[in-house]
Amino acid sequence: MSYPEKFSGFQAPSAEKWLEFKKGSWEPRPFGDNDVDIKIECCGVCASDVHTVRGDWGEVPYPLAVGHEVVGKVLRVGPKVTLAKVGQRVGVGAQVYSCLDCRHCKNNNETYCLDQVNAYGAPYPGTDYTTQGGYSSHARIHEYWVYPIPDSLASSDAAPMMCAGVTVYSPLRRFGAGPGTKVGVVGIGGLGHYAIMFAKALGAEVWAISRSRAKEADARQMGADGFLATSEEGWNEPHKMTFNLIISTASSFDGFQLSQYLSLLDVHGRFNLVGLPGGDGLKVSTFDFITNSCFIGASNLGSRREVLEMLDLAAAKGIKSWVKEIPISKEGIQKAIEELENSSVRYRSCLVAYDEAFEA
Amino acid sequence: MSYPEKFSGFQAPSAEKWLEFKKGSWEPRPFGDNDVDIKIECCGVCASDVHTVRGDWGEVPYPLAVGHEVVGKVLRVGPKVTLAKVGQRVGVGAQVYSCLDCRHCKNNNETYCLDQVNAYGAPYPGTDYTTQGGYSSHARIHEYWVYPIPDSLASSDAAPMMCAGVTVYSPLRRFGAGPGTKVGVVGIGGLGHYAIMFAKALGAEVWAISRSRAKEADARQMGADGFLATSEEGWNEPHKMTFNLIISTASSFDGFQLSQYLSLLDVHGRFNLVGLPGGDGLKVSTFDFITNSCFIGASNLGSRREVLEMLDLAAAKGIKSWVKEIPISKEGIQKAIEELENSSVRYRSCLVAYDEAFEA
Repeated sequence: MSYPEKFSGFQAPSAEKWLEFKKGSWEPRPFGDNDVDIKIECCGVCASDVHTVRGDWGEVPYPLAVGHEVVGKVLRVGPKVTLAKVGQRVGVGAQVYSCLDCRHCKNNNETYCLDQVNAYGAPYPGTDYTTQGGYSSHARIHEYWVYPIPDSLASSDAAPMMCAGVTVYSPLRRFGAGPGTKVGVVGIGGLGHYAIMFAKALGAEVWAISRSRAKEADARQMGADGFLATSEEGWNEPHKMTFNLIISTASSFDGFQLSQYLSLLDVHGRFNLVGLPGGDGLKVSTFDFITNSCFIGASNLGSRREVLEMLDLAAAKGIKSWVKEIPISKEGIQKAIEELENSSVRYRSCLVAYDEAFEA
Repeated sequence: MSYPEKFSGFQAPSAEKWLEFKKGSWEPRPFGDNDVDIKIECCGVCASDVHTVRGDWGEVPYPLAVGHEVVGKVLRVGPKVTLAKVGQRVGVGAQVYSCLDCRHCKNNNETYCLDQVNAYGAPYPGTDYTTQGGYSSHARIHEYWVYPIPDSLASSDAAPMMCAGVTVYSPLRRFGAGPGTKVGVVGIGGLGHYAIMFAKALGAEVWAISRSRAKEADARQMGADGFLATSEEGWNEPHKMTFNLIISTASSFDGFQLSQYLSLLDVHGRFNLVGLPGGDGLKVSTFDFITNSCFIGASNLGSRREVLEMLDLAAAKGIKSWVKEIPISKEGIQKAIEELENSSVRYRSCLVAYDEAFEA
């Protein structure tokens, strides 16, 4: 197998033309003893990709290839690598580095390490390299953030699990979703559809919560035991203080009925945000929490251990992502972003056909 | 001993003259099989008393005697009472009823029962009686909300524990304050001073957090291991992600540095509100929580089990409330309220000398 000296990818060229993705190439950072080179097969399209290239979250180091839901084949491994093998099918998610030495890293909390590095747009420690994401031909990743994919999972099904999947799996596991618990999922999109499927697979009673009933049939097919439409008067009343955990994947706080959501929670129940709406945030007061001593917070991605556990669960339970494959190209990426923005995708786009796009 | 047919107390007469506490009397609700009649000895003055009589929290059934940090002697008990004895010194707090039958009540969560009744200003189930608080000669309370006071605790020391004490004790216990944990206490007042003392007694490392260093010496005397003044530039920096739990007793959200407070929390740490500021509330966004997956919420009082446990701990560890005794009278109550409002009380007022005030 040949190792390319340069990687190439579809990059957002500038703030003004952020949607005009253009093929570019770059030299990867030096190959380290623990690195794994991956030939990318496919990559999910996450809302974070759009927020980033559009500049919603701050300065962007253009040109930038985004994408952090990657599956590909291992081309070569560094001499110290033990966690991946040449030829293996592996995934890469939204984080590609942490110190692996601090208290957080040593306790499966590497996503809360102060030195964590994002899959794209971030300076890579010890180099002058800016990380590039998965809308690209190849990736060079430290083995810790490279996850073997079970054979029974198709690549484009596994790819969106690398970010959307584990982002909901982690709080479900950490905050107790399981037999005898009732879990709510606010927002049925890329993250929400995984939250429904994983909560169900973990044994919880799952309720999907959406503005209208438009996605009810889909949600039930994913495994939802119940469905609440927040546009219906008094929707929360019969369910007050019955939910142990609610995962909110909402991508906007416009018209967000926080106090109604919180009223659903049992004593000390958690409302865990995983969506990252921009804007002004939410108003809260002590009175929103005191009736049931509930809590609101957020979680960030999931640990390596959780990624591996999630993949095992998905394989064991035959969890099938709802994925729409789109061949990677400038137009393909634009289409995926458009369908994400207008919420028409059911429920995740995955860029595929990398061989054709990146043929030498 | 004689049982008075009418109870009397200092009542706020009306919305316009809420500070003109005036002696009134009323017929108590019918004496039930599980009831305990108490001759009140003293009563702490809580911010809730002021919020209530001033109408901050809604409609007030004037004339109203407030006060929910009561200690007194048992005068008589109903035929089915097993939890209190005639002659015993007992306490009563802010809650005087719940169904004792629901899932919450059966799990030491009676403060989250949907049928709970406040010590004052609330309709008492099955009667046309409106509860009157502890600025009064007597109280008639269901035995479940009557707590024997250990002999070693003085009445005016024990009284403020009935609300201020257990309100901080409960979240400290529930959310893990103990050896090996670092606990922050925001606001050093009636609740805060108990939070410092109880967190210390439970074995935690305790840091007091206040705007200035004015109360530092007091806080350290209460047992604080450290002190943070939020008016000092960069005050939170050296302590980021090191606190397991923060109890906020702040009575106002003006200038509240929420994101700095949250930055102090370790992964999944909790910021628990026990103060009840009025006003508009706090703005939060996902980004406030995501760095450390922290949570913000609130708790309400504490269970019977926690009250008894707290009293045992206070007795065992010789915890001494910082209490200023004020003889009960119109002027005494006004003075206590004034010192509460301008935060000059160090750290709780307790109305005493009930015998003189209520001599027949």
